[in-house]
Amino acid sequence: MNLQMVRKKIDLLDSRIVKLLNNRMELALLARRLKTRVEDSKRENEILKRIRENATGLVHGELMEKLYDEILRESKNLQKKNYKLLAFHGEHGSYGEVAAREWNEDLIPMPCTELVDLFEAIQSGLYDFGIVPVENTLGGVVGQINEFLIQADLYVVGAVELPIHHCLLALPGTDHRELRMVYSHSQALAQCRQFLSRNKLESSPYYNTAAAAKMLSENRPKAAAVIASRLCGELYDLEIIKENIEDFDRNITRFLVLSGKENQEDFANRNINLTRIESIPKSPGNYAFFLDFIGSDRDENIIGAVEEVKSMTTAFKLMGCYKERTVS
Amino acid sequence: MNLQMVRKKIDLLDSRIVKLLNNRMELALLARRLKTRVEDSKRENEILKRIRENATGLVHGELMEKLYDEILRESKNLQKKNYKLLAFHGEHGSYGEVAAREWNEDLIPMPCTELVDLFEAIQSGLYDFGIVPVENTLGGVVGQINEFLIQADLYVVGAVELPIHHCLLALPGTDHRELRMVYSHSQALAQCRQFLSRNKLESSPYYNTAAAAKMLSENRPKAAAVIASRLCGELYDLEIIKENIEDFDRNITRFLVLSGKENQEDFANRNINLTRIESIPKSPGNYAFFLDFIGSDRDENIIGAVEEVKSMTTAFKLMGCYKERTVS
Repeated sequence: MNLQMVRKKIDLLDSRIVKLLNNRMELALLARRLKTRVEDSKRENEILKRIRENATGLVHGELMEKLYDEILRESKNLQKKNYKLLAFHGEHGSYGEVAAREWNEDLIPMPCTELVDLFEAIQSGLYDFGIVPVENTLGGVVGQINEFLIQADLYVVGAVELPIHHCLLALPGTDHRELRMVYSHSQALAQCRQFLSRNKLESSPYYNTAAAAKMLSENRPKAAAVIASRLCGELYDLEIIKENIEDFDRNITRFLVLSGKENQEDFANRNINLTRIESIPKSPGNYAFFLDFIGSDRDENIIGAVEEVKSMTTAFKLMGCYKERTVS
Repeated sequence: MNLQMVRKKIDLLDSRIVKLLNNRMELALLARRLKTRVEDSKRENEILKRIRENATGLVHGELMEKLYDEILRESKNLQKKNYKLLAFHGEHGSYGEVAAREWNEDLIPMPCTELVDLFEAIQSGLYDFGIVPVENTLGGVVGQINEFLIQADLYVVGAVELPIHHCLLALPGTDHRELRMVYSHSQALAQCRQFLSRNKLESSPYYNTAAAAKMLSENRPKAAAVIASRLCGELYDLEIIKENIEDFDRNITRFLVLSGKENQEDFANRNINLTRIESIPKSPGNYAFFLDFIGSDRDENIIGAVEEVKSMTTAFKLMGCYKERTVS
């Protein structure tokens, strides 16, 4: 082991420390939603006590206290700012976060690993918004999500059509000729099957594209790459070996932005133009239908059409009226 | 998600941050061995620049700079202290670290994941000492290690006989009746087979006992426990469900302490008492023998015996003269 190798390891630790601190600040924003005021000296003392006790080996309590004085001060600063939170499914760098940033870059994108938690937390107002994929031009409907949409009492307040461009990412300095194994979500691997076979790369399914990128960056397996977003490359210090490696051109995922509160924006549109119809089997002979159309819920045409549909169905829910955002 | 759950997540992040900082300080001590002096403002500026660039999301460069001012100051303090480093194989909390702490608690125990790196780094003086398991009363000889011992040009400067007491560890608050799966090194699982079967626990092999404890603490799989040292319980905030779960009483591992430099201590012992003899096949009809005996290399008896053995062998190496430490 030489000095350069040791320093490389230190750099990797440093970038993990920054990421953990970012996660910590995100959790602090959540905590703010759940407590009555920013200041809580009892909790602060608990944190400092635990930190002093945890300080083992070469790290002593005094250093940790100095660091946490700064960290807690900054955490309280952020809590005072009343940021709006937009939750996406998965880890940082997932396509959900890419869509979230496209929809509104003033919101704080918050990772949420469990779908059930995401829907619950939008409903409870812990997150102001949530963004979920509902269909993909190649993969079709995202079944599980539609199930949640039916059950949740949420409003659709926006939509994003995101062209999915997959990147082949590897550890910096990797020679692409050495690559053997590619980790990613099974759907992303399937969407790049021709590219992988042309380049004689083996594929290994991972539960999430961004989680695969994180794993590569932390565990550093040899001769390995991942398929994930360009954003993952930036976030996990990975090198883009090749961009746009998807086999088909029109690989677009449609995301819906959900909220516990109805959209208050005014719409001017006056036509009814059906843009999506989807049927989901609920039980034998019993279906739920999703209809998206262009129009405003203040428009007489629309109100009439909606009333007519209502009279024909056993259960009806207007999920929201929103602006569509198409990413080019 | 309620406030208590968010705070629990924050606490877990905090304890990971402390551990990463400890790893960082360990690497700083290694870096010290490889650079000519403590101060290196060029490298410091590089670190601060990288940290500013990496600061994304809710963490900004200014906060990171404040934190790293403290971290780098402490890192340089430690570098000035000329600590003696003792490397063990595996992650923090492994039985190698337990033995290292028993041998001499004034040394800094340093984790080393690859055996080949460990031997190389003792040889080069990067570590002052290394501690490796050579045999176990139940598992027998540790083959791979003996292979390294033959090839390396190192001295044995100490030995530790460590009784191995396995603990069943779980996440705090776990009800032991809920446990289903137990992760650990295959040898540890084998040594607790009766206990596991009595308690109807499934076992899942993991590459290292301490790594299993770390995984449990970070990934928090449900209904899971690990078999590892009591030290792992302390380091990874795990609860001891049951101690001494090994099936057999006399489960003792013998560790040797190695160094690139010969032991300079004086010994008073004057008997030759053979305590270990081991033969390792090198090639058909060609064996290497390891002999441990009680006596001093300054003693005429021993010098005579050693000379006689030398004359009978094609290759001979006196690996060292050291004090034995038996842990009760």
